[in-house]
Formats: sequence, structure tokens, C-alpha cells
Amino acid sequence: MQFQLTADYIQKVTQLIVNKQDNELKELLHEVHFADIADLLEEIKSKEATYLIKLLESEITSEVLMELDEDVREKILNRLSPKEIAKEIEEMDTDDAADVVAELEDHIQKEVIEKIEDESHASDIVELLTYDDDTAGALMAKELVQVKESWTVAGCVREMRSQAENVTRVHSIYVTDEDGKLTGRLSLKDLLTASAKTHISEVYIPKVDSVTVDTEDEEVARIMQKYDLEAIPVVDEKGILVGRITIDDIVDFIKEEAEKDYQMAAGISQDVEADDSILQLTRARLPWLVLGLFGGLGSVFILQDFESIMNNPELKALFFFTPLIAAMAGNVGVQSSAIIVQGLANDVVKGSLWSRLLKEVGLALINGIVLSILVILFGFIMNYKLEFSLTIAISMLSVIIIASLIGTFVPIILDKKGIDPAIATGPFITTSNDIFGIFLFFYISKIILGF
Amino acid sequence: MQFQLTADYIQKVTQLIVNKQDNELKELLHEVHFADIADLLEEIKSKEATYLIKLLESEITSEVLMELDEDVREKILNRLSPKEIAKEIEEMDTDDAADVVAELEDHIQKEVIEKIEDESHASDIVELLTYDDDTAGALMAKELVQVKESWTVAGCVREMRSQAENVTRVHSIYVTDEDGKLTGRLSLKDLLTASAKTHISEVYIPKVDSVTVDTEDEEVARIMQKYDLEAIPVVDEKGILVGRITIDDIVDFIKEEAEKDYQMAAGISQDVEADDSILQLTRARLPWLVLGLFGGLGSVFILQDFESIMNNPELKALFFFTPLIAAMAGNVGVQSSAIIVQGLANDVVKGSLWSRLLKEVGLALINGIVLSILVILFGFIMNYKLEFSLTIAISMLSVIIIASLIGTFVPIILDKKGIDPAIATGPFITTSNDIFGIFLFFYISKIILGF
Repeated sequence: MQFQLTADYIQKVTQLIVNKQDNELKELLHEVHFADIADLLEEIKSKEATYLIKLLESEITSEVLMELDEDVREKILNRLSPKEIAKEIEEMDTDDAADVVAELEDHIQKEVIEKIEDESHASDIVELLTYDDDTAGALMAKELVQVKESWTVAGCVREMRSQAENVTRVHSIYVTDEDGKLTGRLSLKDLLTASAKTHISEVYIPKVDSVTVDTEDEEVARIMQKYDLEAIPVVDEKGILVGRITIDDIVDFIKEEAEKDYQMAAGISQDVEADDSILQLTRARLPWLVLGLFGGLGSVFILQDFESIMNNPELKALFFFTPLIAAMAGNVGVQSSAIIVQGLANDVVKGSLWSRLLKEVGLALINGIVLSILVILFGFIMNYKLEFSLTIAISMLSVIIIASLIGTFVPIILDKKGIDPAIATGPFITTSNDIFGIFLFFYISKIILGF
Repeated sequence: MQFQLTADYIQKVTQLIVNKQDNELKELLHEVHFADIADLLEEIKSKEATYLIKLLESEITSEVLMELDEDVREKILNRLSPKEIAKEIEEMDTDDAADVVAELEDHIQKEVIEKIEDESHASDIVELLTYDDDTAGALMAKELVQVKESWTVAGCVREMRSQAENVTRVHSIYVTDEDGKLTGRLSLKDLLTASAKTHISEVYIPKVDSVTVDTEDEEVARIMQKYDLEAIPVVDEKGILVGRITIDDIVDFIKEEAEKDYQMAAGISQDVEADDSILQLTRARLPWLVLGLFGGLGSVFILQDFESIMNNPELKALFFFTPLIAAMAGNVGVQSSAIIVQGLANDVVKGSLWSRLLKEVGLALINGIVLSILVILFGFIMNYKLEFSLTIAISMLSVIIIASLIGTFVPIILDKKGIDPAIATGPFITTSNDIFGIFLFFYISKIILGF
């Protein structure tokens, strides 16, 4: 069942394109799934990819275009005329169509929309383009199956046949009143079992979860996941049914969000992939490295201040522990912040800040004491003076407590200020904890050892 | 539409439970969604939660139980008799039921299964328990709508009515031959439009994606996402239709995997949440901190070896740069590994290892040169000798190149060996890069400056 995209296969397709063997190409790609054709197009030159897009049925190619990486799609669309683009868009669901149109340059957008023959499709797309990014309006599609309370089951089935033409998957049948206000939903089961003359008002479920066009996309994803919904209707501010969001869009959304958070935690600031260009990857990575560099240069100043102890044979070993302290401060901070960031996303960070503080300190104390004991054992093996080992252990313990508090409360504060707390997991927390940690380590050592 | 779980509400419910005001409780919770009831139960004591589970209809409570955190569910189930558990399980879909039964202790498992009245439900659960974790068999449910090629549309609708009773959502109608072998699927649209006497064999789509019971869960998630499937049928080794997997299970799976990877990158080894106990959190965090500690202690040895330069007024400043070098090595390593780990998961790491090597070196060179220039500028401001600044810049550049290669190739090698590469993103890569980086920094400086 699985299609394997081999180098041989790619070469064969390229050869057929060069030779313009259209019939052979059509035959070869006839049974191939559009997601696999998309994979193929990402491996060949955009000129050749465009040739295939023009050659194959737009019923297939419209799906292929949606599966492509945005930059590959852009290259191909640049090679198509507005009329050709319009032909592809006619075949797309309105949500996909609006996404593609939004990617086009302004003057081409207008031309493409004018060339769409189905006027209601065109006006649906224009409507979807008016909604803000990151809202339910931008996520939803206009395709849905809608019946009125006053209809009979037989009339409903008749209507559904024609509506279902445009709807790839019937998730739910939405019921509205005469004005189009959403009032409930109808299950397929009930429709199958009710007699033909029954009125919808007698069999429908007068309760349905819905979101409004300005509900934030994150909130939509949260609701659909929490209540296990496969589709959710979208209403305008008057309660009129205007669209629906299906779970497949939410799956993509969840994946993208998870990847963004993961990348942010790793110090990568844009949505890049392993196969992006060196320039794109540099732009995503360099800023965070520069931040880390500044942090490191900051530590230079701190360490310089303690330069004098390099002349003290008993104290200079403190310098050997700077990587250890930096690593501990960084690791503890990343752990604490990751747990809080996930907790905030999943809504499990409850209770007062005060109890959270106590918990973090408790946790840091337990971890810190175990690690301190290991350090003291290490000092014993290395024949350090007990006073020296204890100093390292105590200052490390303090660093661990402070680092965990920074890791916990920076995301919470960011979240309260409406900033994505995920930004606080990666290099940001490591860098600040490095500096704090090293300073604290030397400062506490100074107090204890009195240098 | 949104339910808000307030402290007042929780208190009210608790009070009603204490007073045993069953009718008031039933009325209060009557319209509340099971996911919200689950949230409520996670906030009250397990004794009170169990009271509610016993009080409400098992049609609702079975759903509530599935929404609960595993540890909360365990506490409640421990307070229920096998018969009471069986009653809840009767109401669950087979996949959920099997998950819950699997969580029970062995001797209770047997008792519970014996107490399930619906024998076919019980035997379905027993069957599901036989499949390996992490396979399609363990993910699938037995509930599905299945029709035979030889049936007529009218017979099919009749059969569907009774089958649909047990199926919460009709995603697809699967078509089999007389032996139960999966041969295709039927769209609801075709069923709605075909005449009653037509045979299924004339209208069904003789092509359907499927997986086998031993397909790995990750592969199932990949296929369903790639081909935008909302449900996929599962067949046994003979091609007999045995179950189906729906997208909502995959949504949960994707989220869990993303959270696991995120936690792994942050150095947290078990699936923990912000509201877990200090002990659970310690168990998840401490091992990685100990790893970091050993790494830090390793660095002590390396730095000790260069102790003599502390007496050299021109060279001792090298020590001030250890946090900078460790941070750079760590950050670059984490960035490289995160991109590769995601690339491996999304299947975009293509091309030869050789071209990957060239790309990483190129990327590290560009980033490294920019950072080196900043370091030289810093040296200029600080009045360092040019030779000294250049030494730091060159050795830092080498560290960056090596760190990015380690970050890239460790996950690739792990992946080839069948080990989850995500393990290589967090403390593992930071710790090893810290040590390598610091060693390399001093060693290269030694070569250049000749000490």
C-alpha cells in the first residue's frame, strides 16, 4: 500500500517531462496519492513541477498544491498565469483557497479572484480573507451541510445531496432557524432512523458547541481537543452560522505549534526545516547565538572581578567549577521553565503563586542536596579541604534554587503579560541563568571563605 | 457556551456531596460536559470524586473516567468494586475499555472482565489486550460500520442502523467480501444517492488505505496525517478487517509525542506535569542533573590541566572565557540536534551524509565567523592584544564547528541504530559539548599561543 519515492522513480518522471511524454506521465501518476505527488514535486525543479501541475487534472493538482511546502508552492504559482491559478483554486475548499490567495501578491490576488468562474466560491474566499490571522474566521471553511428546523427529513436528505457535493466529508449536519442562526445539530444516525415525513425540529439535538469568528485559533484547538470534537461550527457576532472548522486543520495547527515551541526551546526562532537553505537557517539561529555570546562576554566581567583569587593556591580551584555551575544553572532553569510552559499550555498551573514557589524551592532543595552530596564526595576523592567542598556545595545549592525560581517565574510573568512563555525556555533562560549562577557562585564563595 | 470551573463551584459541589444531596448534585451536573466534570473531579478528593462517579449515569461517567489523568483515574478505580468498574467499561468504546483494563492489576483485570455482561464486548477487550503496545492493534477500536459487497443499499442501511448504535461517529463504511477481507469503502454520499436495490459491489470504492495490527503507532500517525485521513481501517495478517483507528486518538498521540520530545529536550525524562508531586518531578529531573554534574566535574579535570597559565598575566584571561565557550558549544549543539531530530521525524532529512556534513560546516562557519568578529571587537574594546583576541575567536570558531557536527550526527547515528534521536537534544548534547568545547578551546589556544 505504501508508495516509495525512489531516486529511480524521480529520474523516470524527469525524463518523461523532458521528452514531453504526456500520456506516459498521466498513466504513471494516475494511481498515485496527491500527498505522494507533492513529495515528488518537492524533489524536482520548479519548472518541471509546474509542467506536471499544468498536465494533471486540477482536481488532483489542487490537492497537491495544498500539500506542498509554502516556498515550493510559491515558486510554482509564480510560473502560472492568474487564469491557471484560478482553475486550481476553483477545486479547493474555501479555507485552503483563501490560504493560497493570501500568499499571492496583492495585484495578482485581485486578478486571480476575478478569474474564478464560480461566483459564490469567489465571494466566500473574499469573505475569508477579511478575517484576522490567528482567529477561527481564518481557519474555517464555508463548506458545510446546513438544514433548517422547519424542513422534513425527506427534504433534508434531498438538500443534503446537493450540499454534500461541495463537502468532502460530512462531519455534522448543522441546524439553523429561518434567519440562519445556529440552533443545534442533527446526527446521521437520527437521520437514518427517522421517518421521511418527520420534521427536523422534532429530531435534532438543540445543543451544539460553537465558536465565533474572532475566537483565537489556540482556543479553538483547545476546545476541539478537550471536547473531542471532529468539527466545530463557527458563528458571527449575531449567532448566524458562517462556517466550520474540521479536526484535520487542527491537527496541522497542533503540530505546527508543538514544532514552534520545540524550536524556541532549542534557540531557533523561525519555522525552519533541515532542508532549508543555509541563509534561512542562519537567520533563525544566529540571533540566539549572539544573545548567548553577549551572556558569555558578561561572564567575562564577573570572572575578572575575582581574578585575584587566581594567586591563591587554595582558592583558584573555584575557577575550575565555573562550567559545572553554568551547566547546573542552565539545566535546572530549562527543566523548570519547560514544565511551566507546558503546564500553562495545558492549563494545569493552578493554585497560588505562593504554593508554586514553595513547591519549586522544595524540589530544588531535594535535587540540590543530592547533587551537593555528590560534589562533597568528589571533593573527598580529590583531597579538597572540607571547607572548600562545602563552599562549592552550598553555593551550588543556592544557584540551583535561584535558577529554578527564575525558570519558573519568568514564563509565568511573561504569560501574565500576554507574551508567549515558550520564548523563556531556550537560550534566554540558559544565558541569564549562566550569568546569575556564576555571579552567585563566586559571591557566596567569597562570603563563606572570606576572600 | 464555555463552562468555568470556579472555586465557588467546587465548594458547592463538595458541600452537596458531604450532605449527600444526590438530587441537587444530579441537577447541578446535568448539563455539564463530561470533560468539564473530569476537570472538577481532578480538583476534589478521590473519595468525593468516587461518590460522583457512583452517583451519575455510567453513560456519562465512563466518558469522564477517560478524560481523567491516569493517576486520578487509578485512585478512583481503586475505590470501586470489580462490578462497578465493569459497569463503567460496558459503556466505553473497546479501545478506551482496553486501555482502562490494562491499567488495572492482573487479578482485578480478570474479575472485571468476568463481570462484563455483554460477552462480545468482553471478548473484544480481551482481544485488544493481546496486541503489543505501540502498535495499531493497541490503538484501534473494534467498533466500526462494516457492510458486505453482496448486500443491497437497502439492506446496507438496515444493517448500518443496528451497527451504528455502537459506533459514536460514522467516519467511513468499510466494505468486505464474504470472508471479512477488507476490499474497499463506501461514501455516505454514494449511499444517500444510490437507489435502494443497487448492490454495494456496484457503488463502493474498491480502494482504501489500511494498516495492519502490527504497524507501529508512529507510522499510523504519519500515514493518517500525510493522507489527511480521519479514520483508518486495521486488518490482520490475512487482510481480515479487525478494527479502526480514528483521528481523535491520533491527535492525543501527536500531542503526547510532542510533549515527550519537548521534555526530553529540556532534560525531563518521564511524562510529568506541573501539578505532579515533588517526588515524581524529582525522579524525572534528577538523573539529567546528575549527568550534567558529572560533565561539570569532568571539566574540572580539563581546566586543572591548564592551571599553570593562571600565573601568566597575559594568558589567565582565557579562564574568563570558559562560560562563553561552554554556552556556545551547548547552544550550537542543541540547535543542530533539534533541527535534525525534527527533520528525522518529518522525513525531510534526505540526501547523503556527505552533503549534510558540508551544509552543517557551512552553516557553522557563517555563524561562527559573525560571532568571531564580535569577539574580536570585544577584545578591541577591552584592549586585549590582537593575538589573544584572534586566539579566542579561532578556537571558538572550531568549537562551534565541532559542536554543530556532534549535534547533527549523534541524532542521525542514534536514529540509524533504532534509538529515539530526541534523547540527543537535551542535557546529553549540552553536557558532552561543554566538555569537548572547553577542552578544544584550551587545546587550540595552547597550540596557537604556544604555552
